[in-house]
Amino acid sequence: MADQKKMVESITSMDVDFAKWYTDVIKKAELIDYTSVKGCMVYRPYGYAIWENMQKDLDQRFKKTGHENVYLPMLIPESLLQKEKDHVEGFAPEAAWVTIGGDETLTERLCVRPTSEALFCEHYAKVINSYRDLPKLYNQWCSVMRWEKTTRPFLRNTEFLWQEGHTMHETAEEAQEETLRMLNTYKAFFEETLAIPVVTGRKTEKEKFAGAEATYTIEAMMHNGVALQSGTSHYFGDGFAKAFDITFTGRDNTIQYPHQTSWGVTTRMIGAVIMVHGDDNGLVLPPRIAPIQVAVIPVAMHKEGVLDAANALKERLSEKYRVKLDDSDNSPGWKYAEYEMRGVPLRLEIGPKDIANGQCVLVRRDTREKTFTPLDQLEETIDRLLNEIHDSLYQKALDNLHAKTFEARTHEEFLDIAENKPGFIEAMWCGDPECEDKLKDETGGVKSRCIPFVEKHIADTCVCCGKPAKHMLVWGRQY
Amino acid sequence: MADQKKMVESITSMDVDFAKWYTDVIKKAELIDYTSVKGCMVYRPYGYAIWENMQKDLDQRFKKTGHENVYLPMLIPESLLQKEKDHVEGFAPEAAWVTIGGDETLTERLCVRPTSEALFCEHYAKVINSYRDLPKLYNQWCSVMRWEKTTRPFLRNTEFLWQEGHTMHETAEEAQEETLRMLNTYKAFFEETLAIPVVTGRKTEKEKFAGAEATYTIEAMMHNGVALQSGTSHYFGDGFAKAFDITFTGRDNTIQYPHQTSWGVTTRMIGAVIMVHGDDNGLVLPPRIAPIQVAVIPVAMHKEGVLDAANALKERLSEKYRVKLDDSDNSPGWKYAEYEMRGVPLRLEIGPKDIANGQCVLVRRDTREKTFTPLDQLEETIDRLLNEIHDSLYQKALDNLHAKTFEARTHEEFLDIAENKPGFIEAMWCGDPECEDKLKDETGGVKSRCIPFVEKHIADTCVCCGKPAKHMLVWGRQY
Repeated sequence: MADQKKMVESITSMDVDFAKWYTDVIKKAELIDYTSVKGCMVYRPYGYAIWENMQKDLDQRFKKTGHENVYLPMLIPESLLQKEKDHVEGFAPEAAWVTIGGDETLTERLCVRPTSEALFCEHYAKVINSYRDLPKLYNQWCSVMRWEKTTRPFLRNTEFLWQEGHTMHETAEEAQEETLRMLNTYKAFFEETLAIPVVTGRKTEKEKFAGAEATYTIEAMMHNGVALQSGTSHYFGDGFAKAFDITFTGRDNTIQYPHQTSWGVTTRMIGAVIMVHGDDNGLVLPPRIAPIQVAVIPVAMHKEGVLDAANALKERLSEKYRVKLDDSDNSPGWKYAEYEMRGVPLRLEIGPKDIANGQCVLVRRDTREKTFTPLDQLEETIDRLLNEIHDSLYQKALDNLHAKTFEARTHEEFLDIAENKPGFIEAMWCGDPECEDKLKDETGGVKSRCIPFVEKHIADTCVCCGKPAKHMLVWGRQY
Repeated sequence: MADQKKMVESITSMDVDFAKWYTDVIKKAELIDYTSVKGCMVYRPYGYAIWENMQKDLDQRFKKTGHENVYLPMLIPESLLQKEKDHVEGFAPEAAWVTIGGDETLTERLCVRPTSEALFCEHYAKVINSYRDLPKLYNQWCSVMRWEKTTRPFLRNTEFLWQEGHTMHETAEEAQEETLRMLNTYKAFFEETLAIPVVTGRKTEKEKFAGAEATYTIEAMMHNGVALQSGTSHYFGDGFAKAFDITFTGRDNTIQYPHQTSWGVTTRMIGAVIMVHGDDNGLVLPPRIAPIQVAVIPVAMHKEGVLDAANALKERLSEKYRVKLDDSDNSPGWKYAEYEMRGVPLRLEIGPKDIANGQCVLVRRDTREKTFTPLDQLEETIDRLLNEIHDSLYQKALDNLHAKTFEARTHEEFLDIAENKPGFIEAMWCGDPECEDKLKDETGGVKSRCIPFVEKHIADTCVCCGKPAKHMLVWGRQY
């Protein structure tokens, strides 16, 4: 028991060391294990189950908007990757290369996909011939590899899991609509499923995806005020189509280039969930993706009828929820701490007195509020509480986002906030990438997050150079 | 229209050239596309949807039997792969190696996983300490890579998709039970979902998995009599546990090695479905994995009310089935041929006369039998027909398996069957691998499939050397 107690106690407090708190939580909650390849992780059952729940929800959203799943190879010949100049420049520095297959050294080395634009384009060139073949709305679930120098579980891995949508359209307008439709799909998923508010907007030229005409982003704020770029959607115009010679016969019988998008979210979202909602007791999981929604804990388990009642509740609730009954020999107190640490939204306690009274106790993970619930009202109470937990997690995260977002009117103010107030900075910008570089250098890493879709007018001039402002930018340190 | 007609007509007849028929079908039905990396394919939406349906069904079966999904890295350090001698000998010749990451040549090359025993063992060594940690019942869905010299879509790819179960148990008995439980899970999936009968049994020493103590297999027979090893389940004993130093404290407080299994099925199953059920008109898909179960074809589409009725049926049936309405400008006749070629189990025709009569026409893909169905009995009729199609596909495949399975009592008889009768050969065997080699050489490739769980007594002596027989073996040429 001493060991078990220590396990929960040994989570570092967030305020003492947020980074240590984060790695403590993911280890204790058994989300991941490290491996002998740097930056590559084992997703343990509890961690992977979160991903599966995210996948299921997103996949339905993609299919509802007309997308189809496909699977393309994990290897890209170097010559194929090189067809689009900006793209290869962006990705070659972090590529992993297969150079030997079986006993032979390959005549052309093959890149383990860091992203699959090149492969999709190779395929699209073969299957798109007429405007009747458009749009092509493909999505792929897979793992990708980027040879990162500094890695951090979920947030920056050498190998990570993601989905990548790649679509082709008849017109630029349709492609632009798709780009924003998918960004909004991500936003809705973050709000409705992960209970995470996001700032949405367009990346600056400097921060956009290699080869894109425009990159849109959803930016989430972690509990400590640090930004996490959580999903991106890119409009490519017809640049890749030209590079890969993808053409179609249009309605007017002329040969045209189709217009392209891509968009992706990754296992990084698991990191966002941990760092937005977690607390000093461990994980706090949003109910809609929690692998266990209700943990059933029998109290005075060895008294007659308790285990039967607990089992019956488990059976009954499993019809509708993801439920775990813990009938192990550990004490109820240990179990309470354990499932709190694992972020289970609701704990259900059932003991002899409850049985006698035809009730049970529901305890919320986020507030620890107890609700005595008649068994005949159990499902409606659980439904209500799970929704309340979701809403309350969202509101808390939104409050944090608002509380840690600051307006900077002057250069001095910008530097002061950057140094003293972790969070987002809203400030005006002239549009010059040099000002982005300068502020990043001066602050030791505060970068532009995006030009938000809803810009405020904070001042007339750029917070950096004083020239007339073109846009409001949101700034922040990032993971 | 000429083009479209040709598309369907251009499937080579099975009897003329089975291999050509196969590649024609997978191209025409748009299951795959080739890529610039040999043996790596694009799974197009229709092909990938078959895989998704297989996954969903299997995943439920795995979870029902207590398994949890995880995800492990795609790269294995060479030193890790080398820990188990037999295993590395089996897989090194077909390994693909990452030797460069970013700008640097790696100090140790990394193998793109051909299978993940080594990685699971590395992880298990860290998380298994006590008998309380057992069993570990993990499964992983991922892609693997084997540098094959000769490739064939779905059947033998350089990269393929699969699931790999890896489990650890307290005792040898438990592990052996698990090995057979999962083999039987595969068998049930093949019969109940894919409508494919299989021969089950144990592989000979010569044919077992690299590093396993015993390998069990399900062997399916393709329409042309060729065997397809369709799923395997391995019992490892504690060999890997010793090599990777995985130990646990047992109930008696002694340090022990756990006992291990692994088991897998792959996208090869899609090849099996095509080659077991297909015919000269193209695919014939078993209803339970068909991406489209009912194709709704409006007849005289431009007459008033037809499209509305077709749309209403589409909406109604989508509640329960995977449905596609084809309201394109192609003729009904073209559509009939198209969805036949794509193997859609049921076609629903609805025209003005049907609407007037409150009915529609259901046409089975496998028999082309027509059923005039009152609209108020539609779902029950579809349910019945889909089940009948499943049963009838299974029975047809079983008849083929029986018709093409031959007993060989003598060496001469064996060689005669091998030369003249495509199919399985049942024959007695002394247990000596040399006899396996000899028969394989003499027949130009007939290999032992398995020692079936149910052995017949065909003769007293080995069909090859004439020594006393130990087992009956099932033999066959393979893909």
